[in-house]
Amino acid sequence: MDKKVKVGIVGASGYSGEELVRLLLSHPHVELAAVTSRQYAGQSLAQVFPKFGHHPQARNIRFTEPNVSLLAKNAQVIFLALPHGVSAEFAVPLLQQGCQIIDLSADFRLKSAAVYKEFYAHDHPAPDLLATSVYGLPEVYRSAIKNALLVASPGCYPTSILLPTLPLLRAGLIKPAGIIADSLSGVSGAGRKVEQDYLFVECNESVRPYSVPKHRHLSEIEQELSLAAGAPVIIQFTPHLIPVNRGILSTLYFTPAIHFANATEAAALNDKITACYQAAYANEPFVRLLDAKTLPDTKNVIGTNVIEIAWRLDTRTGRLIVMSAEDNIVKGASGQAVQSMNIMCGFPETAGLI
Amino acid sequence: MDKKVKVGIVGASGYSGEELVRLLLSHPHVELAAVTSRQYAGQSLAQVFPKFGHHPQARNIRFTEPNVSLLAKNAQVIFLALPHGVSAEFAVPLLQQGCQIIDLSADFRLKSAAVYKEFYAHDHPAPDLLATSVYGLPEVYRSAIKNALLVASPGCYPTSILLPTLPLLRAGLIKPAGIIADSLSGVSGAGRKVEQDYLFVECNESVRPYSVPKHRHLSEIEQELSLAAGAPVIIQFTPHLIPVNRGILSTLYFTPAIHFANATEAAALNDKITACYQAAYANEPFVRLLDAKTLPDTKNVIGTNVIEIAWRLDTRTGRLIVMSAEDNIVKGASGQAVQSMNIMCGFPETAGLI
Amino acid sequence: MDKKVKVGIVGASGYSGEELVRLLLSHPHVELAAVTSRQYAGQSLAQVFPKFGHHPQARNIRFTEPNVSLLAKNAQVIFLALPHGVSAEFAVPLLQQGCQIIDLSADFRLKSAAVYKEFYAHDHPAPDLLATSVYGLPEVYRSAIKNALLVASPGCYPTSILLPTLPLLRAGLIKPAGIIADSLSGVSGAGRKVEQDYLFVECNESVRPYSVPKHRHLSEIEQELSLAAGAPVIIQFTPHLIPVNRGILSTLYFTPAIHFANATEAAALNDKITACYQAAYANEPFVRLLDAKTLPDTKNVIGTNVIEIAWRLDTRTGRLIVMSAEDNIVKGASGQAVQSMNIMCGFPETAGLI
Amino acid sequence: MDKKVKVGIVGASGYSGEELVRLLLSHPHVELAAVTSRQYAGQSLAQVFPKFGHHPQARNIRFTEPNVSLLAKNAQVIFLALPHGVSAEFAVPLLQQGCQIIDLSADFRLKSAAVYKEFYAHDHPAPDLLATSVYGLPEVYRSAIKNALLVASPGCYPTSILLPTLPLLRAGLIKPAGIIADSLSGVSGAGRKVEQDYLFVECNESVRPYSVPKHRHLSEIEQELSLAAGAPVIIQFTPHLIPVNRGILSTLYFTPAIHFANATEAAALNDKITACYQAAYANEPFVRLLDAKTLPDTKNVIGTNVIEIAWRLDTRTGRLIVMSAEDNIVKGASGQAVQSMNIMCGFPETAGLI
Repeated sequence: MDKKVKVGIVGASGYSGEELVRLLLSHPHVELAAVTSRQYAGQSLAQVFPKFGHHPQARNIRFTEPNVSLLAKNAQVIFLALPHGVSAEFAVPLLQQGCQIIDLSADFRLKSAAVYKEFYAHDHPAPDLLATSVYGLPEVYRSAIKNALLVASPGCYPTSILLPTLPLLRAGLIKPAGIIADSLSGVSGAGRKVEQDYLFVECNESVRPYSVPKHRHLSEIEQELSLAAGAPVIIQFTPHLIPVNRGILSTLYFTPAIHFANATEAAALNDKITACYQAAYANEPFVRLLDAKTLPDTKNVIGTNVIEIAWRLDTRTGRLIVMSAEDNIVKGASGQAVQSMNIMCGFPETAGLI
Repeated sequence: MDKKVKVGIVGASGYSGEELVRLLLSHPHVELAAVTSRQYAGQSLAQVFPKFGHHPQARNIRFTEPNVSLLAKNAQVIFLALPHGVSAEFAVPLLQQGCQIIDLSADFRLKSAAVYKEFYAHDHPAPDLLATSVYGLPEVYRSAIKNALLVASPGCYPTSILLPTLPLLRAGLIKPAGIIADSLSGVSGAGRKVEQDYLFVECNESVRPYSVPKHRHLSEIEQELSLAAGAPVIIQFTPHLIPVNRGILSTLYFTPAIHFANATEAAALNDKITACYQAAYANEPFVRLLDAKTLPDTKNVIGTNVIEIAWRLDTRTGRLIVMSAEDNIVKGASGQAVQSMNIMCGFPETAGLI
Repeated sequence: MDKKVKVGIVGASGYSGEELVRLLLSHPHVELAAVTSRQYAGQSLAQVFPKFGHHPQARNIRFTEPNVSLLAKNAQVIFLALPHGVSAEFAVPLLQQGCQIIDLSADFRLKSAAVYKEFYAHDHPAPDLLATSVYGLPEVYRSAIKNALLVASPGCYPTSILLPTLPLLRAGLIKPAGIIADSLSGVSGAGRKVEQDYLFVECNESVRPYSVPKHRHLSEIEQELSLAAGAPVIIQFTPHLIPVNRGILSTLYFTPAIHFANATEAAALNDKITACYQAAYANEPFVRLLDAKTLPDTKNVIGTNVIEIAWRLDTRTGRLIVMSAEDNIVKGASGQAVQSMNIMCGFPETAGLI
Repeated sequence: MDKKVKVGIVGASGYSGEELVRLLLSHPHVELAAVTSRQYAGQSLAQVFPKFGHHPQARNIRFTEPNVSLLAKNAQVIFLALPHGVSAEFAVPLLQQGCQIIDLSADFRLKSAAVYKEFYAHDHPAPDLLATSVYGLPEVYRSAIKNALLVASPGCYPTSILLPTLPLLRAGLIKPAGIIADSLSGVSGAGRKVEQDYLFVECNESVRPYSVPKHRHLSEIEQELSLAAGAPVIIQFTPHLIPVNRGILSTLYFTPAIHFANATEAAALNDKITACYQAAYANEPFVRLLDAKTLPDTKNVIGTNVIEIAWRLDTRTGRLIVMSAEDNIVKGASGQAVQSMNIMCGFPETAGLI
């Protein structure tokens, strides 16, 4: 026990926070040393989340009020599972006191305070930190995460879109213009927000688009695509709410950079795409490249840190269709944050995640 | 009662057939005179579908074996709710015996027997009828339906895509090239097929694309779009299965034919689009054009013959996004078929549907 | 139009109110003359409930602030779809101004103000009216409803329990002691309450009992059972929340008053029970007695005013098991209220309900 | 690796078999050495169950035809996840070849071949084994399981009913007569059976009782209750199907053996009941006794081997209500089977389960 790294969670009462609790309680190399929640201060994890009640530690660990000094004293690595704008209030002093921070909010994902303001409608609370924070997509920024003090863990939609797109864009296999991402998310994506729109009766037997055409996650998606393309990329993104608890399915429409006029040329291009994905992800423990007979299904990734990816060239339209499936709360949030922690702390990257 | 038109349903045991029963039992101007089903012959409607049990007629009407002469004797209008390929076997002799036919299968939707063979993988069983059948989309072919002997009622996906697209295409407001339709369907869309893929546990908490990239419904969608554009149109279409009983949500991506460079020009174009939709649908009883604050939601159309349509210009990408919602079994199948019947028989078009 | 009865709905924004709107908009003998909602005053029905948008009146009728004088002026029959305690505030002055009232709250269901206080934890707001209000269960109190000025429409659970139990109790076929009612309700039963417990993610893939062992609905259930038995009846009642939008399934455990020792005696008793139910309900348009092969299923009653009832004698235990299924918002609330209105106004009892 | 116990699964393609695969792939002390399935022979685990694809072994392990000699050669412990009647065909020869068997079917749960025939409608295929098989409820038969060669893992409903009932019955706190168990099960309880009743559209938005009044699981429930009571016990049991993938909620109605006339006596009895449960389960890793404010909820046990239990005395009726929640596929099937294996093999009992 003495060699375990002490970790804390600020804002542990939402869905991402709860999932962090689940993952960290079972993690072989960490000790969950602090969980905070204004709402639940004083209560044990087992009281607030009965489902963890059979875990011995869940009966001993109690929620506390969020207190920076106490957190810094008790934990080396701090996860912030807070609303955007609020995260920065904790990140700044905790960094000063020597903690390593993994932030699940949007506060440190963008490199530009101006873009932040455009999409989040208020001034960035700590613009100086934007230069040093690392975007926590391990498959892309593994080495930077290794030495990071502040990791900005990606959003759920961005993860489902960036992982399938970045290798193709970097390899020049698709055109950066005209990309469309059509995404379907389970209701936990809205957080534990007590609003009429997310009541059972309002979501069950309902499917609906929302935030059309300018969802906030576009800011980080386009930032990362632009970095990969070496030029500004603007995409079309349409999120939809579907009646499942967990899961994001993204269907992506690309124009291949290489024209193909017949089945032979299509097969050749398909080989290039396959090779590109294999080069990028064959050794990634959490990316599952599907074969030509299989399409993604969120039920195959629920509860895991895996993202599934499949692709099809359409010889009729000349387009490339790529589809991905992930658990929005795991690979799209808390699992990916733990993956970053594993890298930062020198643990095996899959520790506590498989 | 004596003035009511006698109607029959062949293949009344699937979801479309069952919905036809529901609509026709309550229809003020028809008498449900015959329902056939090999599986249920001899049983009453109330026995097979307990939910209709409180309707007096449901206890009296019994399923019979499908028999062409008997059907022709007992009913003037026949609905065929049969698999493709099988419908034609009934349509041909029933037409010869003077019945009017409304076919819910794909057998008579295509004008070209060659395209039928390409998409349905067998020779067309009655190619001579393709020239006379009318595609049963009342908002487009009302006058032809009025005099039709054979109406081919459209597929569920095609209805959700064609109604939002055709007015824009005819008005020249969108480019015919590069159209993308991303559609989400409830599980009843698969019919009452007893296959593992459609078991509750396999569908619940699951979202998945299928038939990528060449779904059969493309054939009728592209036929109708090409007719409207006056030139061949090829589109991208990706269907997804989502865990709801009923409902299709289609998100359509168009390139406007008119370029817009700023907010003013966008507003002008938006006005044109709005005017186009108003001209096409303001008086249509089953098309609901949503305002600029509202997006479609399948829960608002379930159980009704209504299709909801909303549109948004994206000044960032230059694209037009149009979204529609319908009940796949009503406007996407049986409700639309009854709407055609109302037109053919000279009933008020909304009879039995509002 | 001029001969239609004018009706109003106070508190039309909850699920029961919304369902009243649906039923009354299509009702052949009434005009929906007033709908009130503090939250939505000024907006049209079509704006608040897009799903009614295709109904011409829904675009014309606007929510108003609840105003007693205005209501009394505009409508003859007023439905109160308000929380308990609030209903009485409207019922008293509306009655004084000559309106007929159908109250969907619990305010006037109990004959005893003391029992009301025991179960609802506050003094009854208008105890004088308890003597004149009629419990709106048409199958039991049809003639009283006919002349009532104030109908207290029953709760959803009580309806599902009373209709199967009362005939047996009155006929002396079951013992009044030891009755157990185990009930399962869809989430709409909680109303459109914006609380964490009713969020999609908290209800989906969840089943749970609640209010054990003393739910408020016990008060009216036991009042009516006691009246039927001619002696005080106390029952066991356990409600459960299940992830469906609509529907209540109640499973009732009775001890037959007549002992049966073998299959022959069981068959004889079963005949008596069947005869009892037939006598009570064979001519009731909204009670469906199932045959010996069929069990209730909420999906067969959703959207209808029907309650399904089935019964099985268990020769192993000597018990009688009776099961019922209803739509909690229709037969369990708004449909039953409209049924009462039909009786009060002299309309055919099924008007607007089949 | 060399010290791991080799295990096999016969019939690994159903829901219980699939869950065994999940648990055994991650189990620290076993090697999954053989999985059989006639349907999938030749395919890898990763091909048949894409969701296990990120587990390295899942790509290497292939389904084989079920072959007794091969199984006996490759594995020491064999799980049988087969239909009743078929299990015995494998159990007999595998035992002869020296394997330890954990059978998830009903074949060896009953001590009486006559009762088996009464409930399963065919002669018992291997009655000689009934005397030696051990009912695999670890909380009750731990020491017998330790030395068992043949463990009959309990059914899902029986587990949810026996664990809450047995301690009370043994302690004489409840009367053995008149027990009622009202249970709600997710659809996976029906297995991966491809039947119309279990299609998504038939189960979603549906709740229904079934097998009333004599479900097969009564046989093992009553056998175990009778053993605990020292006299024959007959209970009332009503299963219901609800639209969730996993989970059983059982609500049990008992008559306390000790009469209580007022709140003080009730509190005293409640203390006795609490003490009884504490004595039975306080140290059980998989039984969660809830406090007086909390009721069971299947969502708190899904995916775990935990059963939740809560109890309430009803001073109005004199009854004791006990409620339990479990995951029907884990504690109700595969998790409990692994728990038995841990005991048989001398592993920590929670290995691979927490």
